[in-house]
Amino acid sequence: MPDSPVPDTHLDLLERPLFCHLATLRPDGSPQANPMWSVWDGTHLRFTTTSTRQKHRNVTADPRVSISITDPDRPYRYLELRGRVTAIEPDPTGAFFTELATRYGRDLGGPPADAADRVVLVVTPESASSQ
Amino acid sequence: MPDSPVPDTHLDLLERPLFCHLATLRPDGSPQANPMWSVWDGTHLRFTTTSTRQKHRNVTADPRVSISITDPDRPYRYLELRGRVTAIEPDPTGAFFTELATRYGRDLGGPPADAADRVVLVVTPESASSQ
Repeated sequence: MPDSPVPDTHLDLLERPLFCHLATLRPDGSPQANPMWSVWDGTHLRFTTTSTRQKHRNVTADPRVSISITDPDRPYRYLELRGRVTAIEPDPTGAFFTELATRYGRDLGGPPADAADRVVLVVTPESASSQ
Repeated sequence: MPDSPVPDTHLDLLERPLFCHLATLRPDGSPQANPMWSVWDGTHLRFTTTSTRQKHRNVTADPRVSISITDPDRPYRYLELRGRVTAIEPDPTGAFFTELATRYGRDLGGPPADAADRVVLVVTPESASSQ
């Protein structure tokens, strides 16, 4: 497995079901920040979105992203990751969406209405800063 | 007072002492997201930083920013603002830093050690999205 830039001291911020704030780049180069669910596999962060949303268009045109997470229990602990969307995977049954919904305690009792458009954004972090 | 794009339904997210996640643009155009304190005056959001930090260099070179805030009590309520840093004001005594520290319940008993470098980033929101 490739080395991860995430410091061991802050891995819990990725492992717990905390909201990430994902910054992407709009077509004019301006930033767009959105709260997101995520899951970490030790190398990649994965996010669910749909192919109809602006943030999907953003990362398709420019894959560079930044992610900010704070610890709700100790809000001066934070982790910022910078990296790229290195894959966009289809999720046409909404299975990944449902996995994330369950992880975040929001089981919706079935696939989302927009399952056909669901995609997984796979982000590879390249650098980290933390406090 | 100019019209604000912030919907009345989500003004509380600016009025309460919640953490904002501020996305700025690095010199190579990539995004950088950081948790920040802020205060809202009905037209502008103000942030404290120092003139030695990367985010200050970022907004000096390109003033475009995005701000993401979630409601910790109802995490599916959120507000995203996009806009620009329209002024950078010196805060050489750290008075604005102390005002924010008090607002966020973190009174440090005196001016910050880096008061001489402290500045206020004044952001004018131009558009908002919310849920």
